[in-house]
Amino acid sequence: MEDFRFNNKTDIRFGRNRIEEELRPAVQQFGDRVLLVYGGQSIKRSGLYDQVKGLLNGLSVTELPGIAPNPKIDSVRDGQKLAKDNDVDVILAVGGGSVIDAAKVIASAKFYAGDPWDLVINASERTKLAQVPVVDILTLAATGTEMNYGSVISNPETHQKLGTYGPNSPAVSFLDPTLTYTVPANQTAAGSMDIMSHLLEQYFDAAGANDVSKGLIEGLMRAVIKWAPVALETPDDYDARANLMWGATMALNGIVRSGNQNGWTVHPLEHELSAYYDITHGVGLGILTPRWMEFALNADTEALFARYGRNVWDLRGDDDQMVANQAIEATYNWIENLGIPMTLPEVGIADEKNFVAMADSAVSVGRLDVVPYVKLNTGDVVSIYKASMQPLNFNK
Amino acid sequence: MEDFRFNNKTDIRFGRNRIEEELRPAVQQFGDRVLLVYGGQSIKRSGLYDQVKGLLNGLSVTELPGIAPNPKIDSVRDGQKLAKDNDVDVILAVGGGSVIDAAKVIASAKFYAGDPWDLVINASERTKLAQVPVVDILTLAATGTEMNYGSVISNPETHQKLGTYGPNSPAVSFLDPTLTYTVPANQTAAGSMDIMSHLLEQYFDAAGANDVSKGLIEGLMRAVIKWAPVALETPDDYDARANLMWGATMALNGIVRSGNQNGWTVHPLEHELSAYYDITHGVGLGILTPRWMEFALNADTEALFARYGRNVWDLRGDDDQMVANQAIEATYNWIENLGIPMTLPEVGIADEKNFVAMADSAVSVGRLDVVPYVKLNTGDVVSIYKASMQPLNFNK
Repeated sequence: MEDFRFNNKTDIRFGRNRIEEELRPAVQQFGDRVLLVYGGQSIKRSGLYDQVKGLLNGLSVTELPGIAPNPKIDSVRDGQKLAKDNDVDVILAVGGGSVIDAAKVIASAKFYAGDPWDLVINASERTKLAQVPVVDILTLAATGTEMNYGSVISNPETHQKLGTYGPNSPAVSFLDPTLTYTVPANQTAAGSMDIMSHLLEQYFDAAGANDVSKGLIEGLMRAVIKWAPVALETPDDYDARANLMWGATMALNGIVRSGNQNGWTVHPLEHELSAYYDITHGVGLGILTPRWMEFALNADTEALFARYGRNVWDLRGDDDQMVANQAIEATYNWIENLGIPMTLPEVGIADEKNFVAMADSAVSVGRLDVVPYVKLNTGDVVSIYKASMQPLNFNK
Repeated sequence: MEDFRFNNKTDIRFGRNRIEEELRPAVQQFGDRVLLVYGGQSIKRSGLYDQVKGLLNGLSVTELPGIAPNPKIDSVRDGQKLAKDNDVDVILAVGGGSVIDAAKVIASAKFYAGDPWDLVINASERTKLAQVPVVDILTLAATGTEMNYGSVISNPETHQKLGTYGPNSPAVSFLDPTLTYTVPANQTAAGSMDIMSHLLEQYFDAAGANDVSKGLIEGLMRAVIKWAPVALETPDDYDARANLMWGATMALNGIVRSGNQNGWTVHPLEHELSAYYDITHGVGLGILTPRWMEFALNADTEALFARYGRNVWDLRGDDDQMVANQAIEATYNWIENLGIPMTLPEVGIADEKNFVAMADSAVSVGRLDVVPYVKLNTGDVVSIYKASMQPLNFNK
């Protein structure tokens, strides 16, 4: 087990409609000047927008709407200006991962004189800055941003989608599973895949003998595997939405990475897809994950893949190689049954022209030749992209 | 899943000898007047005491030695006086659960004019008080106090051993697995049983459909089950000590209770044993746990016991009742193999004269007729104590 530091001060308020009593004091503890950050029309259609505005009645509320999926640096620039011009005391983010990711970087950018893209490229500079406290109301179970230090911001001009982190996780996060009842099936599926991918990235880790982390992750994976199909079948199943929501938070709040080496693989590969083609992050992960597994399975790794098969998928048998292959197939089938497109052409990526550039960037940004469980060079990454062009066939 | 709030600010520093660089700034961030709380001779024998004193050189350090297992209210009273007389800024606790438990209550008692036993009896008063920040160096993997709000304090005069909680968890906790290399086998065993019991208390919970919590707990239990025997066999096995130490913290830092109803059973029963006979807490838990399981297994509960058997003990078979019984036997055998005495007479409790009084108190203090997964009245508790007088026989 590796040495680690864990310190996460986010105050989680989990349950139905806690905002009614708790939102105003949670926000107002930091001051009266609020920047309200959100996405599109969904929180207006659902009534959440009106409820929040009512609860903040009398406070000075400036609005930044229109945060898009794969949030763009231009939105952060807009937020920086509003935060400075109105000298906001607190940012209230209402939405999914993209909205909260943007809010967290805006919270730093208020205290930065230059272009906030600098803070995305150079997180270590960012951690030296002050940060406006962020309160959020989460509306999608997926990224875990509601209880961590990270954000992912895209720059369409440079084809870059990069992770950054700040000095603080959100101050208060409201997690109300009922707010996810109206999430469409494709987003529920992509969000569930995002959770599963976070867990897999941390499970297939190079640190030795970290059974605490592995055991925690196995339990979280079983919960996600069980409840994602239920949420798709019955969108207002509270238990399904609750397990996915808390599972998403637990998957990426720092707990299960403690004692790991934390070299991620599939996310850097996916970030290139989203940066070049602006596809849904969870869909890209769904396509790439089984191909990465097929690539990564070898004599050195099959024992861990077999453990994954036994402890997560309840597979039996003493033959590690067989169980490992069955585990990859089970993973593929679970993703496919969520309704996620399983090839790149299905999401509009019809040719391989950018694969080498994307692979080069993924290896460089993700240090894939140095830090992951299975190290990858550019050619390896290209082969994984190419394998994603057609369905996997397990009857070979 | 039940509604919950989770907020835990403890700053965990996990790994070998981090105190060398990090202890002084961790303490001094709160001030220069330190109350150093510890137990007996073991930290002097190991050299840890001298190392800590060296690292705090130049600060104003007042010492409170002699904190006993099942820490006594008199030690808290002594600490209260020292904390007030020296107007301490920070308390540094060096030791196991008893030392840290006492330090946390002393941290509140500095700001209380009356007898600190009041704060044990009435935690809700205590949460309104200020609290001196506590920094700790943990030397035993067991109670989880290093990352939670709780303490258990004994009052020998009144035969009471009661849980209390304060407004804050420790500010900084140093978790160095190598400091537990010298823990004797019987304490390693009792500590491991304490961890396992914390997990079982939260696993057999009345909240429905909390698969996140159940999955996390199953993973932690597998880690403890695997590594406790290794630590007994090879006391300086780093991986074993690291998994036990982080597993102990994770078992009781609030994470795995989130979304549960949290009615505990075996701990209230054990607290009576320790209060009347001052036996080792983990030993009492080891004796009582399998008897509670036998009592609690019935048609309503067997599905969960069977899940426990399959996901924790890797038992197979479709017959829930059979798997449930095998799981109880596996639990008993694991405890016995740790070298824990398995009957009350083996720890000097030769007769049943106090059982009714103890059972009455356990039901009252633990609200055992209201909150647990399987509710218990006084007669039920007496029957569990009586069943603890002789070994369990699984070949009946």
